Amino acid sequence: MTRVTADMAVSLDLVGAGRDQSREHPFGPRVGERLHQAWMFDHAEDHADELAAITQARAYVMGRHMFGPDRGDWDLSWTGWWGPEPPYHGPVFVLGREPREPVEMEGGTTFHFVTDGIDAAVEQARAAAGGGDVSIAGGVTTLNAALAADLVDELRLHVVPFTVGEGLRVFDGVPDLSLVPVSARATPDVTHLTWRRP
Amino acid sequence: MTRVTADMAVSLDLVGAGRDQSREHPFGPRVGERLHQAWMFDHAEDHADELAAITQARAYVMGRHMFGPDRGDWDLSWTGWWGPEPPYHGPVFVLGREPREPVEMEGGTTFHFVTDGIDAAVEQARAAAGGGDVSIAGGVTTLNAALAADLVDELRLHVVPFTVGEGLRVFDGVPDLSLVPVSARATPDVTHLTWRRP
Repeated sequence: MTRVTADMAVSLDLVGAGRDQSREHPFGPRVGERLHQAWMFDHAEDHADELAAITQARAYVMGRHMFGPDRGDWDLSWTGWWGPEPPYHGPVFVLGREPREPVEMEGGTTFHFVTDGIDAAVEQARAAAGGGDVSIAGGVTTLNAALAADLVDELRLHVVPFTVGEGLRVFDGVPDLSLVPVSARATPDVTHLTWRRP
Repeated sequence: MTRVTADMAVSLDLVGAGRDQSREHPFGPRVGERLHQAWMFDHAEDHADELAAITQARAYVMGRHMFGPDRGDWDLSWTGWWGPEPPYHGPVFVLGREPREPVEMEGGTTFHFVTDGIDAAVEQARAAAGGGDVSIAGGVTTLNAALAADLVDELRLHVVPFTVGEGLRVFDGVPDLSLVPVSARATPDVTHLTWRRP
């Protein structure tokens, strides 16, 4: 039975991406690498289970800004932030306004481009997952759209202990959501929190 | 050695009090009792340690809106939300703009009124605590002022799993705070999270 999961690293004030995102600063210059560096890279061994869970889905959905820094017409030379072999190893459905041909990467990742919104993207990912999980890979806007559409079965926030003060925040525009706490684990780098749909 | 602690029940989107607070709806009609009812009252036995910690301080600081629903000149007939014997059993320093004589309650609680701001209130509470802890009892505006002034040694958020979408949010106006995760405990009612000053 397919579950729809979502992982997001956020600050204490729930910012998942700062302002002024760019190719040089994917999360904005104010946030920099602080949401990810310590737990995903410097001390990855202390977060092995949480990191493995992020890429255990069989299909993924992501927003255009998670895929790349370009705006407007697609920059066809851009094939994601992750180099020739992205960590997804499966189909990734990228939301956008303009159609684009699928992009096949090494290691089994194929980026498909979806122009008819979050519900359609999750539906296509479900079909592609073959009974495995679907993951909402980000960014914040896409996650909030999925939460508002009640598409997420399991939400995992990784709370890094600093405040930003401005930026894109998880749960913005998502009133009246109710979840059930599942787990919580504090580490020196990050607090891992999981909730499920009731 | 006195520590300054702070406890706050918040929604998933960090709302600690909704809009339109009133005597009838201390947390606003939209939030109602949802931030507190399940874990503080219905299933208090499942949260005994966290509840005990809230009132283990020797002196307290709270904002005027936490003390009462009146605005402008003090309503001298109002002596807090808590009836004749408040749960504090010690001195409580209430922030306000206008001076007021102390109000002595049953069971050892005395409300003192402080007109010169959060730093002065915490200083007076420290002096009154005699080496015990000082607790920032709320509400959100007072907690954020204390966080912004770097007065809080230990922050405990009790995250109740629903979103509100609007209201007073913890960490608003508190950029560039850095904390250290200490503990996290998920329960069916609430996720208890603690951080300390680095």
